[in-house]
Amino acid sequence: MPSRNEVELHNSHKDCWVVIHNKAYNLTEFAKEHPGGSKIIYKFAGKDATNEFSKFHPPDMMDRFLKKEFHLGSTETIQPNSCKTRMEAIPRPPLSSILNTFDFESIAKEVLSPDAWAYYSSGSGDEITLQENHQAFNRIFMKPRVLVNVKKVDTSVELLGTASALPIYITATALGKLGHPEGEVVLTRAAGTRGIIQMIPTLASCSIDEMVAAKLPQQAQWFQLYVNPNRNLTIDIIQKAEKLGVKALVVTIDAPQLGRREKDMRVKFENDAPDVQATESLSRNEGAARAIAHFIDPSLSWDDLKWIKACSNLPLILKGIQCGEDAVLAAQAGIEAIIISNHGGRQLDTSRSAVEVLQEVTQALKHSKLENALEIYIDGGIRRGTDIFKALALGAKAVGLGRPFLYAMSSYGQRGVEHLIVIGLNDRIYCAKSLKLP
Amino acid sequence: MPSRNEVELHNSHKDCWVVIHNKAYNLTEFAKEHPGGSKIIYKFAGKDATNEFSKFHPPDMMDRFLKKEFHLGSTETIQPNSCKTRMEAIPRPPLSSILNTFDFESIAKEVLSPDAWAYYSSGSGDEITLQENHQAFNRIFMKPRVLVNVKKVDTSVELLGTASALPIYITATALGKLGHPEGEVVLTRAAGTRGIIQMIPTLASCSIDEMVAAKLPQQAQWFQLYVNPNRNLTIDIIQKAEKLGVKALVVTIDAPQLGRREKDMRVKFENDAPDVQATESLSRNEGAARAIAHFIDPSLSWDDLKWIKACSNLPLILKGIQCGEDAVLAAQAGIEAIIISNHGGRQLDTSRSAVEVLQEVTQALKHSKLENALEIYIDGGIRRGTDIFKALALGAKAVGLGRPFLYAMSSYGQRGVEHLIVIGLNDRIYCAKSLKLP
Amino acid sequence: MPSRNEVELHNSHKDCWVVIHNKAYNLTEFAKEHPGGSKIIYKFAGKDATNEFSKFHPPDMMDRFLKKEFHLGSTETIQPNSCKTRMEAIPRPPLSSILNTFDFESIAKEVLSPDAWAYYSSGSGDEITLQENHQAFNRIFMKPRVLVNVKKVDTSVELLGTASALPIYITATALGKLGHPEGEVVLTRAAGTRGIIQMIPTLASCSIDEMVAAKLPQQAQWFQLYVNPNRNLTIDIIQKAEKLGVKALVVTIDAPQLGRREKDMRVKFENDAPDVQATESLSRNEGAARAIAHFIDPSLSWDDLKWIKACSNLPLILKGIQCGEDAVLAAQAGIEAIIISNHGGRQLDTSRSAVEVLQEVTQALKHSKLENALEIYIDGGIRRGTDIFKALALGAKAVGLGRPFLYAMSSYGQRGVEHLIVIGLNDRIYCAKSLKLP
Amino acid sequence: MPSRNEVELHNSHKDCWVVIHNKAYNLTEFAKEHPGGSKIIYKFAGKDATNEFSKFHPPDMMDRFLKKEFHLGSTETIQPNSCKTRMEAIPRPPLSSILNTFDFESIAKEVLSPDAWAYYSSGSGDEITLQENHQAFNRIFMKPRVLVNVKKVDTSVELLGTASALPIYITATALGKLGHPEGEVVLTRAAGTRGIIQMIPTLASCSIDEMVAAKLPQQAQWFQLYVNPNRNLTIDIIQKAEKLGVKALVVTIDAPQLGRREKDMRVKFENDAPDVQATESLSRNEGAARAIAHFIDPSLSWDDLKWIKACSNLPLILKGIQCGEDAVLAAQAGIEAIIISNHGGRQLDTSRSAVEVLQEVTQALKHSKLENALEIYIDGGIRRGTDIFKALALGAKAVGLGRPFLYAMSSYGQRGVEHLIVIGLNDRIYCAKSLKLP
Ligand code: HEM
Ligand code: HEM
Ligand SMILES: Cc1cc2nc3c(=O)[nH]c(=O)nc-3n(C[C@H](O)[C@H](O)[C@H](O)COP(=O)(O)O)c2cc1C
Ligand SMILES: Cc1cc2nc3c(=O)[nH]c(=O)nc-3n(C[C@H](O)[C@H](O)[C@H](O)COP(=O)(O)O)c2cc1C
Ligand SMILES: Cc1cc2nc3c(=O)[nH]c(=O)nc-3n(C[C@H](O)[C@H](O)[C@H](O)COP(=O)(O)O)c2cc1C
Ligand SMILES: Cc1cc2nc3c(=O)[nH]c(=O)nc-3n(C[C@H](O)[C@H](O)[C@H](O)COP(=O)(O)O)c2cc1C
Repeated sequence: MPSRNEVELHNSHKDCWVVIHNKAYNLTEFAKEHPGGSKIIYKFAGKDATNEFSKFHPPDMMDRFLKKEFHLGSTETIQPNSCKTRMEAIPRPPLSSILNTFDFESIAKEVLSPDAWAYYSSGSGDEITLQENHQAFNRIFMKPRVLVNVKKVDTSVELLGTASALPIYITATALGKLGHPEGEVVLTRAAGTRGIIQMIPTLASCSIDEMVAAKLPQQAQWFQLYVNPNRNLTIDIIQKAEKLGVKALVVTIDAPQLGRREKDMRVKFENDAPDVQATESLSRNEGAARAIAHFIDPSLSWDDLKWIKACSNLPLILKGIQCGEDAVLAAQAGIEAIIISNHGGRQLDTSRSAVEVLQEVTQALKHSKLENALEIYIDGGIRRGTDIFKALALGAKAVGLGRPFLYAMSSYGQRGVEHLIVIGLNDRIYCAKSLKLP
Repeated sequence: MPSRNEVELHNSHKDCWVVIHNKAYNLTEFAKEHPGGSKIIYKFAGKDATNEFSKFHPPDMMDRFLKKEFHLGSTETIQPNSCKTRMEAIPRPPLSSILNTFDFESIAKEVLSPDAWAYYSSGSGDEITLQENHQAFNRIFMKPRVLVNVKKVDTSVELLGTASALPIYITATALGKLGHPEGEVVLTRAAGTRGIIQMIPTLASCSIDEMVAAKLPQQAQWFQLYVNPNRNLTIDIIQKAEKLGVKALVVTIDAPQLGRREKDMRVKFENDAPDVQATESLSRNEGAARAIAHFIDPSLSWDDLKWIKACSNLPLILKGIQCGEDAVLAAQAGIEAIIISNHGGRQLDTSRSAVEVLQEVTQALKHSKLENALEIYIDGGIRRGTDIFKALALGAKAVGLGRPFLYAMSSYGQRGVEHLIVIGLNDRIYCAKSLKLP
Repeated sequence: MPSRNEVELHNSHKDCWVVIHNKAYNLTEFAKEHPGGSKIIYKFAGKDATNEFSKFHPPDMMDRFLKKEFHLGSTETIQPNSCKTRMEAIPRPPLSSILNTFDFESIAKEVLSPDAWAYYSSGSGDEITLQENHQAFNRIFMKPRVLVNVKKVDTSVELLGTASALPIYITATALGKLGHPEGEVVLTRAAGTRGIIQMIPTLASCSIDEMVAAKLPQQAQWFQLYVNPNRNLTIDIIQKAEKLGVKALVVTIDAPQLGRREKDMRVKFENDAPDVQATESLSRNEGAARAIAHFIDPSLSWDDLKWIKACSNLPLILKGIQCGEDAVLAAQAGIEAIIISNHGGRQLDTSRSAVEVLQEVTQALKHSKLENALEIYIDGGIRRGTDIFKALALGAKAVGLGRPFLYAMSSYGQRGVEHLIVIGLNDRIYCAKSLKLP
Repeated sequence: MPSRNEVELHNSHKDCWVVIHNKAYNLTEFAKEHPGGSKIIYKFAGKDATNEFSKFHPPDMMDRFLKKEFHLGSTETIQPNSCKTRMEAIPRPPLSSILNTFDFESIAKEVLSPDAWAYYSSGSGDEITLQENHQAFNRIFMKPRVLVNVKKVDTSVELLGTASALPIYITATALGKLGHPEGEVVLTRAAGTRGIIQMIPTLASCSIDEMVAAKLPQQAQWFQLYVNPNRNLTIDIIQKAEKLGVKALVVTIDAPQLGRREKDMRVKFENDAPDVQATESLSRNEGAARAIAHFIDPSLSWDDLKWIKACSNLPLILKGIQCGEDAVLAAQAGIEAIIISNHGGRQLDTSRSAVEVLQEVTQALKHSKLENALEIYIDGGIRRGTDIFKALALGAKAVGLGRPFLYAMSSYGQRGVEHLIVIGLNDRIYCAKSLKLP
């Protein structure tokens, strides 16, 4: 049980102790592999990092990912400072004047700190896939039928047996506290009032406990999982999620290595010191790619699905399917649902747009007589009610939105997220009325 | 028979009386459903709203749409002020320098008030269909034949048995007084001198009586109809139109719900107070979509065509056909003519361009051996003589123009509209001469 | 034989005499039909118009087109002023720095008066065909073969039996004095030194006599003809051209009515008075289209080719073929050569690019086994040596350039035109060497 | 053995002696054929040109290309000045902040002198092929498979039996000293530390001896050859290269005549005097095209490959194949490898992109059952790890990069080149991991 005075003595790169939430940790080894870079950790060598740490990570992060041998025990208790919110400091138009997702985006760009904007908005490489995701929808044209009674339209849907007011869900996005001081629980609350499902991310800034605690009694959540090289950690978290009552398990399979989001890397670089030696940076570049492998296992393969299924009764959803062949494999493996996704253009650039893949997937499944074997969801570039309509018309059962929810949350908090869902709803009803599709 | 003094006492949201054209009305209930928003009505609670009202609506609006129970009777007579015209206050180049429809558009943008410009020019969503309507013509290339005698060319045509000097008509567009203080009668007069047909809109700022009164003896008009949830109102107006001598009935079928024209919504929002509470606006957004349902029936279906046909002897035209299948249904239903139209890109965004649909329609009719069953018209994006020519070459019998006439009227009044028709004429003769097509 | 004093008395719209090259004419009737507008003629009512007239028309224009009854006889002789050249007043980079046709274009834009630039550069309508003409070449990609001996390349060619140093000719373009005070003889001289053919335009600013006089002994010329409604005028000019030794007759068939070149119209409008009455302009607009019919016969048809052929022994070339069907008709009519051309995008906008038509034409001729029946030339948008190469590879025997020669002439005179031909030559040799094609 | 004083007397166009590396030469005849223009040579008539000469050419250039009769013998020895490096004078961001090839490009644009930038960056004509080379990659979309174990990835490859750490090589680019005072040896050293192959250019600024001397013991090099009209010179250089230990001979076959790179010509023109007479320039333009024929033989054909093969035991690579047919011819001629290349868009503009040709080539070879007859490499527009991946997936065994290496060398020297290779490596590993391809 080290005292804070003692911690202060371990304040170098070679001997780096840090206090977080009144506990001390030896981060000397870990710092080199920290996905956020070693710099930020060395900055707090010998100090209390709780405030900074809380901006990005939930309190249980250490328990889940840091090897036990580096936990040094409790120190004297100190209250953390409360975070200020940028959102409120910046003049924003009244929420009622926000007509669509692009409005939220342009306000979020003002409200967010440069690094948050870079992290949220960036895609990999030249951002060709990022652009394509939405543009591909604009190239799909409608064929409205007329003189059809569209007085009543029901927009509710059942996803893996769970009711949702709309065929929309909030997909998993990491580091919610970059955008809002309260983090992902803001999304939880808005999903609750509007009756849609939230997908809880592994790398959330809030802990899964916090997000489950913030939900309404009847509200449904899914849990998104990155499979850890240490299988035990993964089994623990799956079982915890099941106990907490989530309705499905989403395994993200499109990130055996994190994408190079250069916009984000540039901001990180600028925030880092200008004294960085060129030679050091070579290894640092390589390092970034390597480090994440401690959190996401690049050896994950179809075989692993078996033990994943074995350790809980939750239905399994695969997130990141990008071709017809893999959709067929998923169906044959007995998976309950797939999400067609390229991770919002954040992984492999020049991958095809999600909606283009959707068309290949439905055909491939049909061709293998597996069209009823699983439910199909899709995310990436959905920005308009018409996009939702097109995805459904082409065979998806529901659609996930990522950045639009982050932007709404960052610029107006819970009210913003609720408003976004209403806009989606409006547009959607409008589509349905005009086109008469479930 | 309330006095003006008495009206003044009913000046709140909860008790809202208004005087229009020397008659008093209780608009407390109606205000909530007013398509133009409740704000504008509350502004005149307890006051005389005639001037403002006349800018948008014909005198008979109340009789046609307001429930009898809210008519409170006549008050003391007062003369309304005369409207000033923006057009004359703004320096405009001589009409003779206007060479094409785009010239009119750019002057109208200057001359029109911001809200009129927003209302006229806007399309729904990202205005993709609005752009496509005209762009699609630019992608159709010509194949001129040579050494053909084109000394004489006849550009006249017969539409449902009515002669027209050109294969062009003025389509229905609402709220003409936004652009010109005299409203749609300006279009009536120009159509008369140039010998083409005007389509009278349900939602005109002038009354149908005024527009019929403004026509020349031999001049032909059609009447455009939005079918009201209250069928009796619709039957009344049809029979009135027939008695007034219109030559055909046009039922608009592409607006079961009004499109979200965001450019227009933004201007309206800015004109409204900045004190609007965000929460209120949620409902207001939803409200706008709901309210119009009191004027346009979203349950209208193919069956309704029977009673519509039954209540008059006028030929029936369906406006808003957008695919081959519905064109075939229309022909089978015994409809005399269809208008291929996406409402000028104001309804469902990413609908296909009108001219693309035209090609599908002629093929579908031919395939069903119905190519002679009805006449085909088209509107949307027609801006050049070559566009007219292409539409005719692809099977249309005539084309409608919307915005170009509004812009010509708003910037130069009757002379402008006449000039526009001449330009169309010139271009068209030119085309005909070069290409020799009827 | 009227005196200049007498002429001065006829100085109104209703009685309008003018002196040109020391002869008096009564232009009262003609003014109304003048293709360049009546304004410019009225400006010289009662005056000597020689200077202004010479800027646009050759001295023999009156003899060729004005009815004999309006020739009033000679007046006292006066020397005309000499024109100054804008070219020399404006600083230009050394000719050797001009690397391609675009360089000439950008300098010509500076050197030319605004109305000359407008007349030369404009296309009809939205200038879509004008753009397409060149862009279409950029979409055709090359397939270079390697390891082929290209040490020696012969770029000469025989066109209708006449030798040309290159497969390039100078096509007919009207009003050369707008660009250079000496007019088209500048082109004649450069064509001579470089050994290529010049096509003499009907509507040249120089007379055909002047252009023939300016040529070298062995130099070959073609004569471009607009067929006049008065057949006798046309027969006269054909026989004159034959006597003067031109090698072929080119009948332009793509202008039954002149295209609406709005850029040009705008400049003309601004140069005209600002006091133009709007109503007058209506008729003026219509007038312009009508007036030209006095010079170019819109009734010209395939039958006319017979008497045209009958009145001389010259080979006949049709300029303005725009589809495969008409190419076949031309071959069947015994025509010696055709020019695929859309008049440089100055006639019907959204016509297809010349090179796209070329591909249709060669296929159609082949299909009718007429591929050897006539020679194929092409003009429109040729700006690079690779464009020339592509046209030849696709079946053309030679290519015509219009604007590039006007721009070279206007910016550097004869030297400029010669330099342009060298650039074409260089590029062409380069192509030939790389690709080995005749 | 002339003295420097004597040389000074021969200082005119008609009698032009020059001292280079302490030897005197009579350049009177040669100046007229100098590919870089005669101006630059006349500038040094009667003087010591060593400094300027060294910026572009290796010391042995004279021995290799200047006729013996013009070698005048040694003069007094003088040390040349040392070149300063622009690179160090200009502030550059730390190398670690360079994330991709485009970053190098934008810094090189600042660091390079205008003429170096023009020479390196330019393409021929309108640079359509230059653009296409890279753009074509962006139009090829990926189809990532999921749940495949990608923990270990091997990126090494064997090219004609020589091991390479990556499927990337440094292609031949002339005039390295324009970018870096030490020239191509910088590339040699970086290729060595990173284990990839360097292709030594005929027209390098360093001599082949220097480049071979700079390599590590085990490091492999190829030698790129332009075949000289004087076959003996070519045989000498081939045999010298073989003796020096290069692993393969690359014959460039896409330059029977050098492309017109207008950006480059403009800069050269501006650097030349403004007093150039227009007439002189005509011939100069023609001259440039002619002069190069003294260095690169435009008569080179398939037959020549026989004696080229005969004079050494090195495997033969043809650089510049641009269609399937020629690839088949190469395979039938017993060539060991081909490089699909359009010379980086510097030769014939509107040639197809390299990667488009690649697809034709693999099909043509397969169709002729020659797919295993030779190795296929490709260069042109490769800028991203994904481009490399796509080229390999489409059948290439390795890819060459040209400009990116020049830019990296010019902006950061050897460290820059090494960093570039790492970036390629990173991206590539990333691709491989995501997509699992060798
Ligand atoms: C066991 C302890 C920690 C773990 C497991 C952990 C994990 C992670 C992960 C996975 C990311 C990358 C998320 C992504 O980009 O997708 C990350 C980013 C980050 N972490 Fe940690 N972290 C730990 C400790 C800390 C500490 C002690 C601090 C601060 C003192 C910190 C600050 C950050 C920051 C600033 C980022 C970057 C956020 C961004 O801009 O993207 N972390 N961390
Ligand atoms: C029975 C009474 C009324 C009826 C039936 C009626 C109907 C309508 C309709 C259908 C529209 C929407 C047109 C469209 O956007 O497509 C509209 C808009 C409007 N109305 Fe009324 N209205 C009534 C009374 C009034 C009164 C009393 C006023 C003013 C005092 C008024 C002012 C307006 C205004 C300003 C607009 C918006 C125009 C625009 O910018 O789009 N209306 N009305
Ligand atoms: C800032 C950000 C963080 C993300 N983090 C995760 C994550 O931790 N796990 C995951 O499976 N997907 C993650 N995603 C991908 C999203 O779940 C989703 O696929 C994507 O955002 C959809 O595209 P959209 O943003 O265009 O709607 C993230 C996306 C963003 C934008
Ligand atoms: C300002 C405006 C108001 C319109 N109002 C109506 C209407 O009340 N009823 C209707 O059937 N169509 C209406 N339309 C659609 C037009 O009849 C027509 O379909 C469209 O304007 C044609 O496209 P264009 O404007 O590109 O020529 C309106 C269009 C505009 C631009
Ligand atoms: C200013 C100008 C005047 C022209 N005048 C004539 C003419 O009098 N007769 C004719 O047959 N073609 C005429 N043309 C068309 C040209 O002969 C030719 O078809 C066209 O210029 C070729 O396109 P290019 O300018 O892109 O090379 C004219 C073209 C231009 C640009
Ligand atoms: C400045 C420069 C000089 C070049 N010189 C040569 C050369 O001397 N010999 C040769 O075969 N290719 C030469 N090339 C062509 C390159 O080998 C290669 O084909 C091309 O650069 C590949 O395209 P990239 O620059 O887009 O990577 C040169 C290219 C450049 C950019």
